[in-house]
Amino acid sequence: MAQSPENIGWRRKLHEIIYEADTPMGKWFDLILFFVIILSVVLVMLESVKEFDARYHKTLLVLEWVVTIFFTIEYIARVISIRKPSHYIFSFYGIIDFISTIPLYVSYLVAGSQVFLAVRAFRLLRIFRILKLVQFIGEASQLREALKASRAKILVFIYVVLILSVIMGTIMYLIESDEAGFTSIPRSIYWTIVTLTTVGYGDIAPQTNVGQLLATIIMILGYGIIAVPTGIVTVEFSRRGGKKTTATSDIAVHLNTQSCPNCSAEGHRDGAKYCFNCGGTL
Amino acid sequence: MAQSPENIGWRRKLHEIIYEADTPMGKWFDLILFFVIILSVVLVMLESVKEFDARYHKTLLVLEWVVTIFFTIEYIARVISIRKPSHYIFSFYGIIDFISTIPLYVSYLVAGSQVFLAVRAFRLLRIFRILKLVQFIGEASQLREALKASRAKILVFIYVVLILSVIMGTIMYLIESDEAGFTSIPRSIYWTIVTLTTVGYGDIAPQTNVGQLLATIIMILGYGIIAVPTGIVTVEFSRRGGKKTTATSDIAVHLNTQSCPNCSAEGHRDGAKYCFNCGGTL
Amino acid sequence: MAQSPENIGWRRKLHEIIYEADTPMGKWFDLILFFVIILSVVLVMLESVKEFDARYHKTLLVLEWVVTIFFTIEYIARVISIRKPSHYIFSFYGIIDFISTIPLYVSYLVAGSQVFLAVRAFRLLRIFRILKLVQFIGEASQLREALKASRAKILVFIYVVLILSVIMGTIMYLIESDEAGFTSIPRSIYWTIVTLTTVGYGDIAPQTNVGQLLATIIMILGYGIIAVPTGIVTVEFSRRGGKKTTATSDIAVHLNTQSCPNCSAEGHRDGAKYCFNCGGTL
Amino acid sequence: MAQSPENIGWRRKLHEIIYEADTPMGKWFDLILFFVIILSVVLVMLESVKEFDARYHKTLLVLEWVVTIFFTIEYIARVISIRKPSHYIFSFYGIIDFISTIPLYVSYLVAGSQVFLAVRAFRLLRIFRILKLVQFIGEASQLREALKASRAKILVFIYVVLILSVIMGTIMYLIESDEAGFTSIPRSIYWTIVTLTTVGYGDIAPQTNVGQLLATIIMILGYGIIAVPTGIVTVEFSRRGGKKTTATSDIAVHLNTQSCPNCSAEGHRDGAKYCFNCGGTL
Repeated sequence: MAQSPENIGWRRKLHEIIYEADTPMGKWFDLILFFVIILSVVLVMLESVKEFDARYHKTLLVLEWVVTIFFTIEYIARVISIRKPSHYIFSFYGIIDFISTIPLYVSYLVAGSQVFLAVRAFRLLRIFRILKLVQFIGEASQLREALKASRAKILVFIYVVLILSVIMGTIMYLIESDEAGFTSIPRSIYWTIVTLTTVGYGDIAPQTNVGQLLATIIMILGYGIIAVPTGIVTVEFSRRGGKKTTATSDIAVHLNTQSCPNCSAEGHRDGAKYCFNCGGTL
Repeated sequence: MAQSPENIGWRRKLHEIIYEADTPMGKWFDLILFFVIILSVVLVMLESVKEFDARYHKTLLVLEWVVTIFFTIEYIARVISIRKPSHYIFSFYGIIDFISTIPLYVSYLVAGSQVFLAVRAFRLLRIFRILKLVQFIGEASQLREALKASRAKILVFIYVVLILSVIMGTIMYLIESDEAGFTSIPRSIYWTIVTLTTVGYGDIAPQTNVGQLLATIIMILGYGIIAVPTGIVTVEFSRRGGKKTTATSDIAVHLNTQSCPNCSAEGHRDGAKYCFNCGGTL
Repeated sequence: MAQSPENIGWRRKLHEIIYEADTPMGKWFDLILFFVIILSVVLVMLESVKEFDARYHKTLLVLEWVVTIFFTIEYIARVISIRKPSHYIFSFYGIIDFISTIPLYVSYLVAGSQVFLAVRAFRLLRIFRILKLVQFIGEASQLREALKASRAKILVFIYVVLILSVIMGTIMYLIESDEAGFTSIPRSIYWTIVTLTTVGYGDIAPQTNVGQLLATIIMILGYGIIAVPTGIVTVEFSRRGGKKTTATSDIAVHLNTQSCPNCSAEGHRDGAKYCFNCGGTL
Repeated sequence: MAQSPENIGWRRKLHEIIYEADTPMGKWFDLILFFVIILSVVLVMLESVKEFDARYHKTLLVLEWVVTIFFTIEYIARVISIRKPSHYIFSFYGIIDFISTIPLYVSYLVAGSQVFLAVRAFRLLRIFRILKLVQFIGEASQLREALKASRAKILVFIYVVLILSVIMGTIMYLIESDEAGFTSIPRSIYWTIVTLTTVGYGDIAPQTNVGQLLATIIMILGYGIIAVPTGIVTVEFSRRGGKKTTATSDIAVHLNTQSCPNCSAEGHRDGAKYCFNCGGTL
């Protein structure tokens, strides 16, 4: 409020470019960001391939610097263009953006900073928004809500599966020998889960007749058990789907990609003047 | 009825602490029990890891004694604080509690008492109640009922799967050679179930063309068959879920963690004065 | 009709014992048959375990003779006690009963008669009836009908899966080398189905980057594809289940285990006097 | 229009034989085409089996020439008998037919023309039409529409699975050593997808305790995740199935195998005189 008008204009402009995608500049920024994020993830992957890294180490380092500088500028711009920087800095995306930016800087200070690189993959989540996948976000939130609603049932289910695995794993450890790979109870439990979820690596496999019989029981159990989460989620989906068709209050509104410069809330209606979250002007 | 009042008061107090979780003392007891159960299971696991056991054998033994003594006191307290001890002693939990307590004592008498340790995993089931997961118990019983209702269908299904496995296993034994791992019919049946349930260890795998063709058929069959239990359970869940929303008599009541000192029945309503199971005063 | 009354009485008696389970004699016969069938299957399995066969060859042979003689008598009794023997002889069960009986006789004539032993597993299907699993037969027929109704969809699905496997298998053969196990197109197709059905033995596995990328696509495809048969069967089950509850004409009748001495049709109502299939007297 | 009547008659005749199956000649042509397509695919497979190819190379080459000549004649006939050849030539089937025909010709010009042989598998799609599987086409299109309707949800789902795989794969690469097979991040991601989809080859498998713990989490996650596409597709199927029974406008019409000589559109009603697609006379 107490800021000079020019300053507001300049910051508002930057906010529009970075946080929104309704202006040509904003669209260009999003497109570039899209490719830089993809590039940053691909770079992390390629660096891990030894033969490739040995050959093109220099090129990879240069590209890594390009990505890092882009991310640094983007991060600073995001912080200064928002009215309440702390809202962004301590948000889920703010933390991910920060950790995605620092690995190269940190690598000059301490070793083993690659750990931070894994976090970059989370930036892929931004692509949802960049591709203006508002429709997809709707679908995604529908999926998320269905999963949320069936959370209690799924937790009970996982709890039962884990207890079953502990019991079965302990019994298998007592039955099977070390040569078959059942060297300890935790390892036997690992094998039980590998079997129960029908993954079946085969690095550990029962050799005795009794062990194979028990393994068979675990498999058929796992076969039946897999039906439970599917049943839960299906029923939840169908209930949700049914609701949608009968509800008459479910009027479709077009959501734009604007985000509130005050609190960063997204998904405003077309033509909305005030943020639905904090009441600030858009 | 014929007991002295002080005696009743003292036993009632102990009953409240051990069997219920509505008083501060009862909550503390449950919290400690929670950690001791987890500890007892973790101990069994760690003892089975040879390198770990070799290094910290003494510490593990001391902790094992702590757990055993706690379990012993808890078991005795449970027996004396209930009005009809036989109700507890021969109940599912009573037997598990007893077997979970004795391994260390038995180990001084006979070898191979580790077998009892596996039973400890069942004590994890108590955690449901300890965490006051009344809501979860509701969900769990809903799952259990749905599975019970579809029991007949699932049994028919498992029966068909087993006959199919016997037939297919016998045919594979006739087709494939010993080198591929099909050394006997039981082993071939084991392989068939491993394949049908899509686990696929790979320790036994067909080598001949005919064998691989038959394996392919078994896999596609298994792929289709997996749909059956899922379909059964889903329909049962959706029928149950549908019932819940339409039934008007399904009034939500808050259940507390009290348990009847007479018959150990749990899940009493708040404010209930008599046990719904045996009619005794709570 | 033109038979002497005593003859009819004697045959009717035998028919009651063998084909029905409403008299004490019939129940005894069924119980014995139940155990002989189980024994016959277990014998075939044990004979295939080399060490076991080497040790107890004589005992196994004696038991095999017991089973064979029992089956022989049973087969002859079934043929002579029915009014129209050809109805039984050329029925599904008649052929299975015949093939289950002959292996030991044939083994004295030609080698390799073990092939017939596999057929014995089919006799396990009789156990359904022996255990008076009329209720289960109801459930089974419900499952069978649901599968029948969704047959067309499932065939289309399997057809698409097969074409996909042929295409993907051919591409993988072109990409991957012989060392990885992709030695021919049929083998590559076998691998594709192993992957698509999420069995994953691991005896053949892609080694090149492109091959692993394609494998990844096949896996995710298989993950999505598994949803299709499940969806089909679930919808069919739920439609069937819904029908049952709304239909008012679905009056429950108790079915007994009687079978028509004329045409062998089973599942007659209690108190029925005429066969619902051929109109003959029961 | 401006063509001579005899010419029209001759071309119409050929069109009827090749594109339709309502005349005896057309049925014969379809039957022969059916077997030639199967033969062409079988040939490609057999050629890839080295031992077989070494032995019967000449026979295979002769049969390959038979198939190629048949396909060549068929392709030319298809082009000249249709009113607008470009409609066929640049259609999906036109391109597949062309590529299926040329490999043998191209093999005399350049090496590595086997790549085209893989395309032949696509010709199997024609069999749908040849077998007059109009009913099946109905089922297939129903499946396709259900999948189309749930496309957005499935895409979101696959996107989430991929991001999860990238993140989990990167973490596993940091945890596990090269010896276990986690030599680079792309390889780790490959392993993650193999595990998440419950395929589980076992060529790469975690060896450390932390790695096995994380693998366990990925498996249980995958177990739960598999429920999502199933739930989506099931709900879509059930919605579609429900629609069909209530809609009164869904009058069944018999579709014949005629195809418009103008635009190749298929699935005309019996007795239709004009193409529903381009309005040309049939």
